[in-house]
Amino acid sequence: MIDQQLREVIRDVPDFPKPGIVFKDITPILKDTYLCNAILDNFMDRLQPDFIDVVAGIESRGFLFGLSLAQRLGKPFVPIRKQGKLPYHTVTQSYNLEYGEAIIEIHEDAFKRGSRVLVHDDLLATGGTVIAASQLIHKLGGTIAGYAFVISLDFLEGKKRLLDYSQQIFSLVSY
Amino acid sequence: MIDQQLREVIRDVPDFPKPGIVFKDITPILKDTYLCNAILDNFMDRLQPDFIDVVAGIESRGFLFGLSLAQRLGKPFVPIRKQGKLPYHTVTQSYNLEYGEAIIEIHEDAFKRGSRVLVHDDLLATGGTVIAASQLIHKLGGTIAGYAFVISLDFLEGKKRLLDYSQQIFSLVSY
Repeated sequence: MIDQQLREVIRDVPDFPKPGIVFKDITPILKDTYLCNAILDNFMDRLQPDFIDVVAGIESRGFLFGLSLAQRLGKPFVPIRKQGKLPYHTVTQSYNLEYGEAIIEIHEDAFKRGSRVLVHDDLLATGGTVIAASQLIHKLGGTIAGYAFVISLDFLEGKKRLLDYSQQIFSLVSY
Repeated sequence: MIDQQLREVIRDVPDFPKPGIVFKDITPILKDTYLCNAILDNFMDRLQPDFIDVVAGIESRGFLFGLSLAQRLGKPFVPIRKQGKLPYHTVTQSYNLEYGEAIIEIHEDAFKRGSRVLVHDDLLATGGTVIAASQLIHKLGGTIAGYAFVISLDFLEGKKRLLDYSQQIFSLVSY
């Protein structure tokens, strides 16, 4: 049901950020207070708080539902950010983009070794950023409790690539 | 009381992002589920939902509490983002940084003309970005219902500059 509600609201924007890409615009979701609440309810239905110690959200759109989700779970929230944004000592991970590479970071005191980290972002595409985030979590001695996405672009096969890190991969709507 | 609790947790990081600047690191707040909840409670105590139609959060850290605050208020959330991030038709505003300029954007369908918009960010410094955000809201025919910040660096006098836009300026801890 949430799947259908999300499909009705998510806006396809053709040729963004470049020709040939159809971008899934979540801003209409954010304007719908009922649907935002339903997203969090649905995440809570599928997640097991007893197996999660920390929620990590990936900058920027992973900050939107990430903190709310952490609050609902009663768990700390940790931001994973683009290079140069986190002020304290960080651990970094580079990953390949179509052209060039990107770097993301996490604070070295983000969580204790052995923590079970739920990774959240709004959308799973090829999984490049999410895998880099998972590698950061491993570098700090954490394990992946699971992945929670609002949207998954299944035709890009990101979920398959994440299975090396966790079997727990949830998305509320898939394309 | 929230003021004191926040002071105890916010971490000063000297010489970030450059020598001479003492950065207020909010990541320890995000790890404290009690304090995150208290921030939202305190915002709710000070805000009047009947005079707010929309909550706008400024990328990236304004996304953290922004969506949660909008949910508590029962109002739509609208992201204000750095140039090139919003996929649909946008209105843009440039503003001066110490060196060069920056541009932020809002979707042209973010809210209806006449909407009263509460602007949220984690921290008010000189107010440059927040004023640019306010100008974007005016361009779309909105008015500023008020400003809600977690932190204000009062010695940078951002609040004075915002008074042209609204008398309703809240921060939970000031330096």
